[in-house]
Amino acid sequence: MLHYFQKNNRVKLKLSRLLRFQAFLFNTDEKRLAASIKHMVGSKPFNLSLYKLAIKHVSVAEEFKNGLRISNERLEYLGDAILGAVVAEFLFNKFPFRDEGFLTETRSRMVNREALNQIAVKIGLSKILEAELKGKNLSAHKSIFGDTLEAMVGAVYLDRGYKFCKKFIHQRILIHFDVDDIIATTTNFKSKIIEWSQKESKEVDFKLVSVTGNTRFKEFLVELWVGGEVCTSGKGATKKKAEQEAAKNACEKLKIAF
Amino acid sequence: MLHYFQKNNRVKLKLSRLLRFQAFLFNTDEKRLAASIKHMVGSKPFNLSLYKLAIKHVSVAEEFKNGLRISNERLEYLGDAILGAVVAEFLFNKFPFRDEGFLTETRSRMVNREALNQIAVKIGLSKILEAELKGKNLSAHKSIFGDTLEAMVGAVYLDRGYKFCKKFIHQRILIHFDVDDIIATTTNFKSKIIEWSQKESKEVDFKLVSVTGNTRFKEFLVELWVGGEVCTSGKGATKKKAEQEAAKNACEKLKIAF
Repeated sequence: MLHYFQKNNRVKLKLSRLLRFQAFLFNTDEKRLAASIKHMVGSKPFNLSLYKLAIKHVSVAEEFKNGLRISNERLEYLGDAILGAVVAEFLFNKFPFRDEGFLTETRSRMVNREALNQIAVKIGLSKILEAELKGKNLSAHKSIFGDTLEAMVGAVYLDRGYKFCKKFIHQRILIHFDVDDIIATTTNFKSKIIEWSQKESKEVDFKLVSVTGNTRFKEFLVELWVGGEVCTSGKGATKKKAEQEAAKNACEKLKIAF
Repeated sequence: MLHYFQKNNRVKLKLSRLLRFQAFLFNTDEKRLAASIKHMVGSKPFNLSLYKLAIKHVSVAEEFKNGLRISNERLEYLGDAILGAVVAEFLFNKFPFRDEGFLTETRSRMVNREALNQIAVKIGLSKILEAELKGKNLSAHKSIFGDTLEAMVGAVYLDRGYKFCKKFIHQRILIHFDVDDIIATTTNFKSKIIEWSQKESKEVDFKLVSVTGNTRFKEFLVELWVGGEVCTSGKGATKKKAEQEAAKNACEKLKIAF
């Protein structure tokens, strides 16, 4: 099984190098695309067809007679996973003393649709897309840039491998994140609830209901009382986490913006 | 930035090779652990301390005076992301003609806690854990084996890099999955609902409410009527997908087991 993969990879690499010669056969559009990709990714594409596929959003994909539609959605699925792994390692190394809850939360704030949309504009992917779609209505799909950025990551990964793709993500995507700013704005639900209670002049109280588990591994159950009634509850490995959880649930229940 | 990473990686690799000499200083427990890891991973560990950390479940982690607890949770977070990326690529290559919805669904069925627990037992990780925990109660944490398997993936990745880790996942984890079997049991919600309606002698009907979008990109809205009343609705890019969505929502609402 391994040998198959290794051999296959080697064949792929050789093929990719051969594919460079295809550049002689590029038409004007393809030449322009190859140049844009080089500018964005930092190196000439080996296999241009991957990048051509990456900018084919489902809304502009051709439909074949049998109803099949070739779009970038599969590449987006792959790119999403690769991006997730690279960002996970980035945060793992950047914050050696923070727990996995913090890392997970920070990661999901970084790879959300809105943030990716903005980065796609910053690195010039939106320009490539606009040229490709030539006046078709882009605004109909809010997340078209972010989707395409993920697909682009998938294309870079397939074209150049994990190491190159990781470098691409570090140098061209992560560089646009102000991670400290992202962390600073991480919502503190408990203070949101207290703020709200003061505005609404209601009494809120966190009550520790129970602590289960053994001496090594505890679970705290906290109830949040609002105006003399139980509003929500929360569980966690520490009292603080359980309170945050209860406060978060209350923010959702009481529709407090956060 | 790149140079820092590259250099850092090279230093890490050299350090890892030097760390092999630490084997002379291993005590009996460490020698046994190193041998077990070699058997499981397929190669001697470079940096044993990573693997020692990987088998430190939060429930048995030592607690320091300041309340800090060193456990495998951070490694689990990293391993989860790496495993996700490798499985995503595996399915991407295995099913070149399936859409991203299918790939996402299949992946989440493969990397769930229950499946990972079983694999941890199959590859002998549970034995290592039992030896480590020496009679402590493992059953208190259902997912301890699956959690530790993810942490182990994280340790292999940090110790040996992406390529080796991918090989490890392919050869030692994915080999235990019968992917075709997993796909065959993918739930068909529509047939579940129809089955249920026959048993309960209720009339169910899928009604196409609207089709929005342009000629290229459509969105179907389907309502599911049960016994003459609207029960749920579903949206999707095809009528079939919208019906599945509506049926899934109904299964949840009517508490039909699936």
